[in-house]
Amino acid sequence: MWGGRFASGPAAIMEAINASIGFDQKLYAQDIRGSIAHSEMLAAQGIITAEDQVAIAEGLRTIQREIETGSFQFSRQLEDIHMNVESRLATLVGPAAGRLHTARSRNDQVAVDFRLWVKDELARVDHALTKLIAAFLNRAEEHAATVMPGFTHLQTAQPVTFGHHCMAYVEMFGRDLSRVRDASARLDESPLGAAALAGTGFPIDRHSTAQALGFREPTRNSIDSVSDRDYALEFLSLSAICATHLSRLAEEIVIWSTPQFGFIRLSDAFSTGSSIMPQKKNPDAAELTRAKTGRINGHLIALLTVMKGLPLAYSKDMQEDKEAVFDAAETLDLMVAAMTGMVSDMTVQTEAMARAAGSGYSTATDLADWLVRTLNLPFREAHHVTGRAVALAEAKKIGLEELALADLQSIHAGITDAIFDVLSVENSVGSRTSYGGTAPDQVRKQIAYWKERLAQG
Amino acid sequence: MWGGRFASGPAAIMEAINASIGFDQKLYAQDIRGSIAHSEMLAAQGIITAEDQVAIAEGLRTIQREIETGSFQFSRQLEDIHMNVESRLATLVGPAAGRLHTARSRNDQVAVDFRLWVKDELARVDHALTKLIAAFLNRAEEHAATVMPGFTHLQTAQPVTFGHHCMAYVEMFGRDLSRVRDASARLDESPLGAAALAGTGFPIDRHSTAQALGFREPTRNSIDSVSDRDYALEFLSLSAICATHLSRLAEEIVIWSTPQFGFIRLSDAFSTGSSIMPQKKNPDAAELTRAKTGRINGHLIALLTVMKGLPLAYSKDMQEDKEAVFDAAETLDLMVAAMTGMVSDMTVQTEAMARAAGSGYSTATDLADWLVRTLNLPFREAHHVTGRAVALAEAKKIGLEELALADLQSIHAGITDAIFDVLSVENSVGSRTSYGGTAPDQVRKQIAYWKERLAQG
Amino acid sequence: MWGGRFASGPAAIMEAINASIGFDQKLYAQDIRGSIAHSEMLAAQGIITAEDQVAIAEGLRTIQREIETGSFQFSRQLEDIHMNVESRLATLVGPAAGRLHTARSRNDQVAVDFRLWVKDELARVDHALTKLIAAFLNRAEEHAATVMPGFTHLQTAQPVTFGHHCMAYVEMFGRDLSRVRDASARLDESPLGAAALAGTGFPIDRHSTAQALGFREPTRNSIDSVSDRDYALEFLSLSAICATHLSRLAEEIVIWSTPQFGFIRLSDAFSTGSSIMPQKKNPDAAELTRAKTGRINGHLIALLTVMKGLPLAYSKDMQEDKEAVFDAAETLDLMVAAMTGMVSDMTVQTEAMARAAGSGYSTATDLADWLVRTLNLPFREAHHVTGRAVALAEAKKIGLEELALADLQSIHAGITDAIFDVLSVENSVGSRTSYGGTAPDQVRKQIAYWKERLAQG
Amino acid sequence: MWGGRFASGPAAIMEAINASIGFDQKLYAQDIRGSIAHSEMLAAQGIITAEDQVAIAEGLRTIQREIETGSFQFSRQLEDIHMNVESRLATLVGPAAGRLHTARSRNDQVAVDFRLWVKDELARVDHALTKLIAAFLNRAEEHAATVMPGFTHLQTAQPVTFGHHCMAYVEMFGRDLSRVRDASARLDESPLGAAALAGTGFPIDRHSTAQALGFREPTRNSIDSVSDRDYALEFLSLSAICATHLSRLAEEIVIWSTPQFGFIRLSDAFSTGSSIMPQKKNPDAAELTRAKTGRINGHLIALLTVMKGLPLAYSKDMQEDKEAVFDAAETLDLMVAAMTGMVSDMTVQTEAMARAAGSGYSTATDLADWLVRTLNLPFREAHHVTGRAVALAEAKKIGLEELALADLQSIHAGITDAIFDVLSVENSVGSRTSYGGTAPDQVRKQIAYWKERLAQG
Repeated sequence: MWGGRFASGPAAIMEAINASIGFDQKLYAQDIRGSIAHSEMLAAQGIITAEDQVAIAEGLRTIQREIETGSFQFSRQLEDIHMNVESRLATLVGPAAGRLHTARSRNDQVAVDFRLWVKDELARVDHALTKLIAAFLNRAEEHAATVMPGFTHLQTAQPVTFGHHCMAYVEMFGRDLSRVRDASARLDESPLGAAALAGTGFPIDRHSTAQALGFREPTRNSIDSVSDRDYALEFLSLSAICATHLSRLAEEIVIWSTPQFGFIRLSDAFSTGSSIMPQKKNPDAAELTRAKTGRINGHLIALLTVMKGLPLAYSKDMQEDKEAVFDAAETLDLMVAAMTGMVSDMTVQTEAMARAAGSGYSTATDLADWLVRTLNLPFREAHHVTGRAVALAEAKKIGLEELALADLQSIHAGITDAIFDVLSVENSVGSRTSYGGTAPDQVRKQIAYWKERLAQG
Repeated sequence: MWGGRFASGPAAIMEAINASIGFDQKLYAQDIRGSIAHSEMLAAQGIITAEDQVAIAEGLRTIQREIETGSFQFSRQLEDIHMNVESRLATLVGPAAGRLHTARSRNDQVAVDFRLWVKDELARVDHALTKLIAAFLNRAEEHAATVMPGFTHLQTAQPVTFGHHCMAYVEMFGRDLSRVRDASARLDESPLGAAALAGTGFPIDRHSTAQALGFREPTRNSIDSVSDRDYALEFLSLSAICATHLSRLAEEIVIWSTPQFGFIRLSDAFSTGSSIMPQKKNPDAAELTRAKTGRINGHLIALLTVMKGLPLAYSKDMQEDKEAVFDAAETLDLMVAAMTGMVSDMTVQTEAMARAAGSGYSTATDLADWLVRTLNLPFREAHHVTGRAVALAEAKKIGLEELALADLQSIHAGITDAIFDVLSVENSVGSRTSYGGTAPDQVRKQIAYWKERLAQG
Repeated sequence: MWGGRFASGPAAIMEAINASIGFDQKLYAQDIRGSIAHSEMLAAQGIITAEDQVAIAEGLRTIQREIETGSFQFSRQLEDIHMNVESRLATLVGPAAGRLHTARSRNDQVAVDFRLWVKDELARVDHALTKLIAAFLNRAEEHAATVMPGFTHLQTAQPVTFGHHCMAYVEMFGRDLSRVRDASARLDESPLGAAALAGTGFPIDRHSTAQALGFREPTRNSIDSVSDRDYALEFLSLSAICATHLSRLAEEIVIWSTPQFGFIRLSDAFSTGSSIMPQKKNPDAAELTRAKTGRINGHLIALLTVMKGLPLAYSKDMQEDKEAVFDAAETLDLMVAAMTGMVSDMTVQTEAMARAAGSGYSTATDLADWLVRTLNLPFREAHHVTGRAVALAEAKKIGLEELALADLQSIHAGITDAIFDVLSVENSVGSRTSYGGTAPDQVRKQIAYWKERLAQG
Repeated sequence: MWGGRFASGPAAIMEAINASIGFDQKLYAQDIRGSIAHSEMLAAQGIITAEDQVAIAEGLRTIQREIETGSFQFSRQLEDIHMNVESRLATLVGPAAGRLHTARSRNDQVAVDFRLWVKDELARVDHALTKLIAAFLNRAEEHAATVMPGFTHLQTAQPVTFGHHCMAYVEMFGRDLSRVRDASARLDESPLGAAALAGTGFPIDRHSTAQALGFREPTRNSIDSVSDRDYALEFLSLSAICATHLSRLAEEIVIWSTPQFGFIRLSDAFSTGSSIMPQKKNPDAAELTRAKTGRINGHLIALLTVMKGLPLAYSKDMQEDKEAVFDAAETLDLMVAAMTGMVSDMTVQTEAMARAAGSGYSTATDLADWLVRTLNLPFREAHHVTGRAVALAEAKKIGLEELALADLQSIHAGITDAIFDVLSVENSVGSRTSYGGTAPDQVRKQIAYWKERLAQG
């Protein structure tokens, strides 16, 4: 019956599918923190004695040291981090250990551990995104007036500045940061004391454990407390959106660093060479960042699928929550760090950017706008005139700004030599002074806005 | 070369893949609203004349009436809602129509239309969730003391009240509501005036159009304004989490309405009969709600996939955003309405619930807790004693509360007849008075909390 | 209670969530075909009379004509296509209509309809992929010797031919074709006669209906027959993989048609211009094809989510299968048609390709191979020598083939002027004659292979 | 700049994101197998000497032993399994090691390793599914005539046999098996010799390495050979469908083992008890199997997302393929093993099933069919008569078979006492003799079919 990997039969299969200690040991610090807070509250409420509480807390601190120094023996038979800790505590402090589990169960214990972990991770992401935004602000400041082509459909559309382009990413990662903070505020409730699912008859004080663990308040419904994994789903959702932003940046880095574009040159640190083609710098870190978006999306869909149609309260299905979140967190941290590094370290090839910005009749819209503004043509008519000018330049294989005034006047008699002011890339960029536009002064204004906003924390 | 459906060749294929008027006509009201606001600002800034503005606004209002009365002829050759409206406007008001497009482009136009639509939809979801929560609060109030089995692993765990179970859903949908509001605040910025991607040189006033359209402020970066679809992704994310909650409720309704459980009886309105088995009430609305979770997850993953790795600024890929969001919105609205209806209309079979609550030794934890509380046994030892009591009752095929005192004392001599107070389902439930616990008073307290919170809006 | 869209209350909600006629009317032809086959079998088995059968069949054919000419009145109260047809049949032929439903139920009826539809769609995809492959074979033949840079990491790696690159897509779409055929063979079983879920006591002949409907055989288990949707999941899976291939092609088209790459020029038919920049050809059809991959992935995950954890046999959840499959099918058909068109119509800019193929020291590997082959250096040492040669050429800002022999000999004394034969792009490409390599003769050999394979059908 | 986990800066981040040795060491056996085959071919073709080949092969075998005995030192600086092995080989055999890499690159090397691994895994799944099917055949044989309620919408529909229900799963897992075999045949091509992407100029023999590695033939296009991951996507697709089947079984096990249903009793091996409620058997293995479906769906969507829009040929993104496949494979193996165990070990509660089968007017369809067959009523009219009989029985709170003949005749005069033959559950089940129906003889026939089919391999 039982062949291959599971030769030893049901016991081996059950242990393999059931035990979570392989991954939930990551929660050891949160588990111990939660247990100490619980024991202190039990003692304060007179449910256990002060002596027992002291023994429990010292035992737990010993265990934490053992784990952190690598001397703790994790056991798969003991299934999870909670039982591993509890079993060791019994060895260390005897019967008092048995009193720690009064008025709680593994269901609220795992919920409090995991919430604490997700809350800590959100703080890490907050910090990392702040650094990424800072990296973009630095590049934006440096290049507030560096012209490059603005693309739509990956075709040259209108000139913009590289600083302005960087600030688009500041907005994206700024929204990510705001999602992180909303999620953190929403999960800030302690499920400890919900017990198995119904609450308890012991005279516990859930507000005090909530406070001791740094939560705003206790959860309001014990069934929901043990069956809720919204905080994990919301973390995965915001990670997927953030990863999407990172993937867009990564794609641009890959394209910009092709010989054909040549807009940037990558640092050695974040690219790999080839032993045979020394000029080749493969943008590996960007490619992997782009790819890892799929991984985070996968974890999101995995947990949504796990939670779909699950009756209340706790079902064992929910044990699948942790690996998804742990891996997504580690992946996101790494992606943000890699992109922060690439953005900071890359060399901007301003000449290549400027050259590309001036090609492709990128200032055609400026010509049309001039016709509207100066000659009062309806915009649609101005477009038509511009189209003819571009066609003429194209036929002559020259730029718009190289057309003779007479040529332009043959298309529309009202054109004057003031037109040449609007046909240069620098003037085009400088003229777009609408709020949020690409004019260097606007870019600098938004840099200042974000610096102040970040400074306020 | 071109056979079958696309027999007429490239033109037919291109029109089929490219035209969006089939779905984006849903944005007509937002499009017209945005255009009127834009025209008013242009006039106020002296970019167009007051006369032209009046003609444009009247033309647009005529078009809105034509669409709403069904007399408007949509054209697929004109691709999208923007060009359909603009083309009709030109017919209605002549050259003035051509001035409306000054200082904007389709890129910021579609962004403002779609944001307005999503913002409106978030308001609809807010309203619908409030009604669903109200439906649960009603049932919870009615059944604050109605006992039922609390399940873990779909096995009887401890008795709870049906009101308490309902309040778990109030917490879930309450979190959904809070996500809706955060998302709504985050998208509350107007992209109008970002133009193609670079802003504009016309002296526009983006703050005034933002205000006219009910947005808090204008967006801060013109590139991001036209390449951002976070508001769509965030709407889909929160919808997926909300749908997950609805699917859990739906699963419970399906299970509870089996003859084996018999906890509820569905109303005719939300179930289907069978022409041959009149006693059969298929829980169709619950099954479809459960299933439609997949559909919303699918739309979420679809748009995440679309946006992955997209270079800035606008790419045509982003046209895929609308159908996903429109269908998810319609689906979510329907799911919430159906579940609100089922929850309100179902008959709670309190006797079946009570019978089930008392079976399965559901009060074993109460016995253990009594041993801890009264005899000061460590919890783990109390568990052991309880296990022996349950085994004895099981051997005698009776309930725990039917054991003789002598039998209980043979297991642990310290047990007194005070034990029988904790072995009844009602007393068990009544004893769980910890904050958020299942005791009816706790349930009523949380009902009061939520009523006040909803009243504050 | 009931506001807004569902103002009329439960009935409106239930009809909106429950009725499928809005989309399953697409199955009308399959439904009628299945019913005619069923009626013929019933008559042949003596279960109904020949007269009744004739009346039924004529009635059904009338209904088909009514639907196809647009005169049929679909009713949402009648829920689905089956009841719409049956109800009309009763009107047309009276009591005989009531005999058609003997020995079947809606559960096997919808299963047979949907299987027939998916089977037809697989045939359409088979046909469309064959045309797409043919388009690539044409381009490959034309460009078997046209050099272009082969990329890894989107960086120039080694020269290849454009024909060879085209043949990579032939392999991909060839695998898609083979998946289509496997799926078609696997679904080729008729569920008709499974009835509600248990089979029937009527003396039906399931083999004869299977044969009449073009299925290989009847299904073997009546419960599975009505609860299985593998054919839908498998269709969506293979569509997702095929869409992934199409998205890779689309991405290449977008990149190749940038001014920076300039490898191809798109036809007007599959690109859009800009009213203002006549030189701009936005690759809209490619962008939309790339994006629609997300849509198909979304449908796949939607149906996987729907089917997850569904108890046997039929649950109403399964009604969500159709829209996912219908939209994925329409989307895939469109994507394949658009890519077939773009590939056929695009102009290959052979000069730009050749120029790019020769840059970036793309023949460095050829130099290393020559050192191994001619001087018997271990490959890793040859790499080292090559690296020094590339560095020298880079320092001199010339190509490898422009280095003087003396320069090369200063790096390794054994180098002779035979080396220059391997440093040209054409010779590099021509030398890669390993099976499946990029040498034009190899490319032509594989073209011949595929032509024959397709000819065999 | 670099804080927290990545304190040491770019190098630490790059190593963390770039190195794959942490997971691709799983490919060591395939890597060594591929290298030995490559070296043998190189020697046979005269590209390297026989002496070098012998040294290489012995060195590789030494490395394999070192890895399998745990004495091999993996290095993260060496990035991946290929460089770890190659570097050790250089230490062991000197310069000959450098000749092994002639005419290949890491791109085709990783492709051949990974294909071999997936092929091996498909063989493992084939074996495991065969055992799962065998387990179901055993239960089906044992319970070919054991009655239970057949459900639709989780409501009692018609009686079926438990054996018949088991055979539905045999059909599902049988289709999975057939998908496994199709996938295995499709991937059975060797990419070795495709080199970096263009093939090679060395006179290699790709047919001989293909044969040596057990592949049917070499791949036909070198670009596709290194950019294709269809075999991984197809493995994930078929795993997701198989997991969906397993999740349906798992859901049934969870529901069947509730006290309310009580259809089965789980073995201790695959359930967990509760220290306090000895009667409780939580169906953990089933719950975890149900949940892990989400994980596999997640990996599928992850890799589809990674591959979307990736230009040819190799991009570093593709390194994300392995962890998804490895984890999905391990997960699927475990799920199949767990379900095989649960199905084999569970105790079928035949009395509870029989009791439930007879309730809920489950034979109402049999009554209707009798009216059609015996009295020649049109089916729709028969349904109406049956409805009235059910309503009468329901009013009297008795079963259909307990109605007096007179009562039945008051509803339709033509009813005779022959009717009572069709109203018993056993007769109902026995009468459904249509091909694939639930009659025990039909069930046994299909068991025999599958036994023979499996015997043929």
